[in-house]
Amino acid sequence: MQYPEPIAKLIDSYTKLPGIGIKTATRLAFYTVNMAEEDVTHFAQSLISAKRDLKFCSICGNLTEEDPCAICTDDTRNQGTVLVVEEVKDLMALENTNEYHGLYHVLHGVLSPLAGQGPDDINIESLVTRLQKNEKIEEVIVGTNANAEGEATAMYLSRLLKPAGIRVSRLATGLSVGSDIDYADEITLIKSVEGRTQM
Amino acid sequence: MQYPEPIAKLIDSYTKLPGIGIKTATRLAFYTVNMAEEDVTHFAQSLISAKRDLKFCSICGNLTEEDPCAICTDDTRNQGTVLVVEEVKDLMALENTNEYHGLYHVLHGVLSPLAGQGPDDINIESLVTRLQKNEKIEEVIVGTNANAEGEATAMYLSRLLKPAGIRVSRLATGLSVGSDIDYADEITLIKSVEGRTQM
Repeated sequence: MQYPEPIAKLIDSYTKLPGIGIKTATRLAFYTVNMAEEDVTHFAQSLISAKRDLKFCSICGNLTEEDPCAICTDDTRNQGTVLVVEEVKDLMALENTNEYHGLYHVLHGVLSPLAGQGPDDINIESLVTRLQKNEKIEEVIVGTNANAEGEATAMYLSRLLKPAGIRVSRLATGLSVGSDIDYADEITLIKSVEGRTQM
Repeated sequence: MQYPEPIAKLIDSYTKLPGIGIKTATRLAFYTVNMAEEDVTHFAQSLISAKRDLKFCSICGNLTEEDPCAICTDDTRNQGTVLVVEEVKDLMALENTNEYHGLYHVLHGVLSPLAGQGPDDINIESLVTRLQKNEKIEEVIVGTNANAEGEATAMYLSRLLKPAGIRVSRLATGLSVGSDIDYADEITLIKSVEGRTQM
């Protein structure tokens, strides 16, 4: 005997989400049946709305309802700095610190030869065009993740942009605040010695 | 800065699902934005449909589109046996074996004093009424989970139903098929000795 069609379809939809297998999908589907009708309706509406009402900012690639996005159109922000991140989530994490007041550029990916992802597959061309058009931009801060792919992308961007006379910098790597030195991995320790700051 | 409203709402909806925290919800929401429009629409529709088109069978508590459910209305099934399970998922697991051809009764829960769940909170009254009305039912097989709460519920049902002259049995506990004796826990081993079968 199969599950009734409505729940079978819902299970099928849940399994399309990343990291959710058939067992979890079944659990979620049964949970959904017991949820308040209002919550289910909101859920369905927000799915549709997230797909329909959101677009990527044509300047920086941020996720937004209005194009260009609120950051690109904010004249009070420092127009001379562009922080390059891999994903919109990274932009949000940096914004939530309330300490960076410049502009952003979202690559929507990272250079990854193993995954077959080259410079043309991520938002690099639009960054170059942006830098050519906008003479106010003096510095590009590369905020890709501190892993092999993020470093490779940072290196690529640095080689691409420096000849054009743009200052390229990289977010600092070192000990996480609150961490113990004896638990830190070796490479982090080496980086933290190399990048030591004057007191 | 906050996420744009459509995605913030979607993150909020995802966090309402069990076992999904804010980090996973954010990941799922961003994934949703990049999904095919068709898949998102299907997802939203199946959410609504699962909530709207499904009900619980008024006889056995199974999840169904038509009340009473396909199992309760199937005259070819053995009308003399009722297998009592905790959840619809358990019913489906048993049905998928294609070996049990009697009826079911879904408790939608289990006796759990710690969780404040007593006999009135689960589908026991409807089972008693059903047994009183239907004289064809001769045996009740208790198929609650083989843990403390499942055992307690089985014991409760046995004491409740036996005085009414109904045969009450319990699914066998013992070694899982394919398992190694030296990896089995002690209680399972004791149960498998106690419940040994003649060869």
